[in-house]
Amino acid sequence: MSALLALLAIAQTSPADVADRIRVRGLSDLGAYRMLSDLCENVGPRLSGSPGSEKAIAWSEARMAEIGLANIRQIPCKVPVFVRGPIERCQIVDGSSLTICALGGSGASPKGGVSGQVIEVKSLAEVEKLGEGVRGKIVFFNRPFDATLASPGAAYGGANDQRTRGPATASKFGAIATLVRSMTHADDDVPHTGATNFGDVPRIPAAALGPQSADRLSRVLKADPTTKVEIELACENLPDKDSASVIGEIVGSERPKEVIVIGGHLDSWDKGRGAHDDGAGITQSLEALRLLKVLGLRPKRTIRAVMFMNEENGLRGARAYADWAKINGETAYAGLESDSGGFMPRAFGVLPRAIKKVRPWEPWFRQFGIERFVEGGRDADIGPLEALGATLFSLEPETQRYFDYHHSDKDTIDKVHPRELQMGANAMALLVWLISEQGV
Amino acid sequence: MSALLALLAIAQTSPADVADRIRVRGLSDLGAYRMLSDLCENVGPRLSGSPGSEKAIAWSEARMAEIGLANIRQIPCKVPVFVRGPIERCQIVDGSSLTICALGGSGASPKGGVSGQVIEVKSLAEVEKLGEGVRGKIVFFNRPFDATLASPGAAYGGANDQRTRGPATASKFGAIATLVRSMTHADDDVPHTGATNFGDVPRIPAAALGPQSADRLSRVLKADPTTKVEIELACENLPDKDSASVIGEIVGSERPKEVIVIGGHLDSWDKGRGAHDDGAGITQSLEALRLLKVLGLRPKRTIRAVMFMNEENGLRGARAYADWAKINGETAYAGLESDSGGFMPRAFGVLPRAIKKVRPWEPWFRQFGIERFVEGGRDADIGPLEALGATLFSLEPETQRYFDYHHSDKDTIDKVHPRELQMGANAMALLVWLISEQGV
Repeated sequence: MSALLALLAIAQTSPADVADRIRVRGLSDLGAYRMLSDLCENVGPRLSGSPGSEKAIAWSEARMAEIGLANIRQIPCKVPVFVRGPIERCQIVDGSSLTICALGGSGASPKGGVSGQVIEVKSLAEVEKLGEGVRGKIVFFNRPFDATLASPGAAYGGANDQRTRGPATASKFGAIATLVRSMTHADDDVPHTGATNFGDVPRIPAAALGPQSADRLSRVLKADPTTKVEIELACENLPDKDSASVIGEIVGSERPKEVIVIGGHLDSWDKGRGAHDDGAGITQSLEALRLLKVLGLRPKRTIRAVMFMNEENGLRGARAYADWAKINGETAYAGLESDSGGFMPRAFGVLPRAIKKVRPWEPWFRQFGIERFVEGGRDADIGPLEALGATLFSLEPETQRYFDYHHSDKDTIDKVHPRELQMGANAMALLVWLISEQGV
Repeated sequence: MSALLALLAIAQTSPADVADRIRVRGLSDLGAYRMLSDLCENVGPRLSGSPGSEKAIAWSEARMAEIGLANIRQIPCKVPVFVRGPIERCQIVDGSSLTICALGGSGASPKGGVSGQVIEVKSLAEVEKLGEGVRGKIVFFNRPFDATLASPGAAYGGANDQRTRGPATASKFGAIATLVRSMTHADDDVPHTGATNFGDVPRIPAAALGPQSADRLSRVLKADPTTKVEIELACENLPDKDSASVIGEIVGSERPKEVIVIGGHLDSWDKGRGAHDDGAGITQSLEALRLLKVLGLRPKRTIRAVMFMNEENGLRGARAYADWAKINGETAYAGLESDSGGFMPRAFGVLPRAIKKVRPWEPWFRQFGIERFVEGGRDADIGPLEALGATLFSLEPETQRYFDYHHSDKDTIDKVHPRELQMGANAMALLVWLISEQGV
């Protein structure tokens, strides 16, 4: 009887049937949330090169083994090592303290701190114009998110040059430290970290300010432009270290050399637990393959889960994986990434060249919240696979809440809804199945 | 100069321009969230006939006056009065306590409580079949939400006959009390209230059980089917009381007798603060009219905000409003209700007959999260207006989280996202504007 049921199950492979079976099993099991809870609780933050990242690698291998994936292995890469250290302090001299956290890649201050006059700016161009005028000063980047934009991602894109390149620009002209308003819409005082890149200019202390601290500092400066601030950071940037991405797969039954990558990034910032960024993408990818396995769906092409290391501050895992895939005698057929949070799905991004092919698939995805395929797909980790010919897809969930939590102590499991997360996993399972069966 | 700017503003009335202006102003002001915070903090719960409901009526009039609406007035109705009372207690005899809250309309227990053997059932049909077998017993309805359904609303619809009619069915056959598993997907122990209707059978104690308490009681009963439970409820059902819905409007410049209603319900349950249910709909409706006013958009038809009283346990306000509209020498042209929570918009429901007319409007709504118009529109409060010829619309937001909070102590302002709420208000402002200008 169970053999007959298995045969019946395998026979139910019309896209609408597969979608329904994925929905019923996925929403019953809520496997993505179970795995994400475990990752947040038992692994925790997992910045590249940290002990947490080592645990995350072992955790990934163990989950893949449980699911029954084949060819589980690590793809090595070297990663930068940023250590936050025990001291993060910022204070208006003769005044109140400000809430900060170091940006990833920040320089340390001298012991006891560095203090100086603060120059508030709204853009990198303003610093370029001030030039030598910032020498010996602390540059305070305070251009907020544009709240009038409907898309929080667009607001982030319009502000985050202050974080990624602001400190280097200030350092180039001799600034002694930088403060950057946190990249968020949230009206609270939680600071949000993230990578900053100094290139070949000296690393200076670079910290994110909580939004309310940024507002307060701005008010104080308006009242007294000679206000001084003292900053102490004990962070370290250590030599590169060996690390790895983790892969595991379901080998294709007909075209095993054509590989569909499904993944997210395994590393997270050292604040919060990386629940949405990107524990969500990692566990949705694992859950998608778990669903195909438990439903007895054997794909024609190989579907490979990739837990990319070091998306946050280097993208070394993504590059190393692409290099490895290139010489591995296989075809990088497609890539699907989830790295925009574990919220309710709304769309899939896809490279423009494939949009016509996949548009007829839309009705099958509606029950998972996916309304349509839109132009997109170039998420960071799968990006390098485009040059190898892969068709790229990105999960596009609802994002109004994302930057409230992103890179901060607030990115914890209680912000994730079990069913919303699962809907993403369900949609991803169906998408890789359709790519495998129907091609792109 | 300001007169010229005003003229320019009025000239910008193409739908795309109006949509952009609504977006920019709405997302800058976040007026819906400001009003909702105020409602939750300074009015609080507002069950029909309670002191809170009186405060809510005055609060509505004050907000309408601030916004500058015309013809602000109350539309009277009589409402039932349910008072929870100070005692809600449930206990497994010789065992642990269970978390409950009385359903609205529940009977009281004798002082000191009522105790009896418990019969667990999964449906009303099961009680009908047991018939006299439930006499002298406590009937425990324990059919959970169907987790495999994508739509939480569908899961609710498939379970809530247990709450609305289960206690009456048990009472008909002589049950002494009822316990009903809370109407939620949530895996916690918070009970969710809601209306139950006894019709002409005796009111017996009827309480919602927290989901974990329901699971626990079910396990205990499996181990010992003779388990007894004691329930004490001190609730009261008092005589009907005078109350009112509140209306205010922007008078149409060309067809003032054609009235477009925009609203939600002003009453809430006495648990939590009614933030999503339906403070969200109330404040989105007020915010939509505020936006039209501040943007200098004078509609051709009259747009009237209606804060309906008594949706939760009687619908008396909705019926009284429709009766009043019928004799008021006006045309009930259209109705738009928001009563599915203040989450990110996804669609508008609309009566089937109008769907072809409004479909070309879809692109203007995308920036507010509205993907499409779907068949729907018959929300409870505007429902009676259909018989008067009104075309009905309903805001359809994302709902995966809604029943986590619905009718419970968890329905508080911290569950509402300022931008998500505002997106709904923005979409509603644009929709009533388009209905007014282009007709349906």
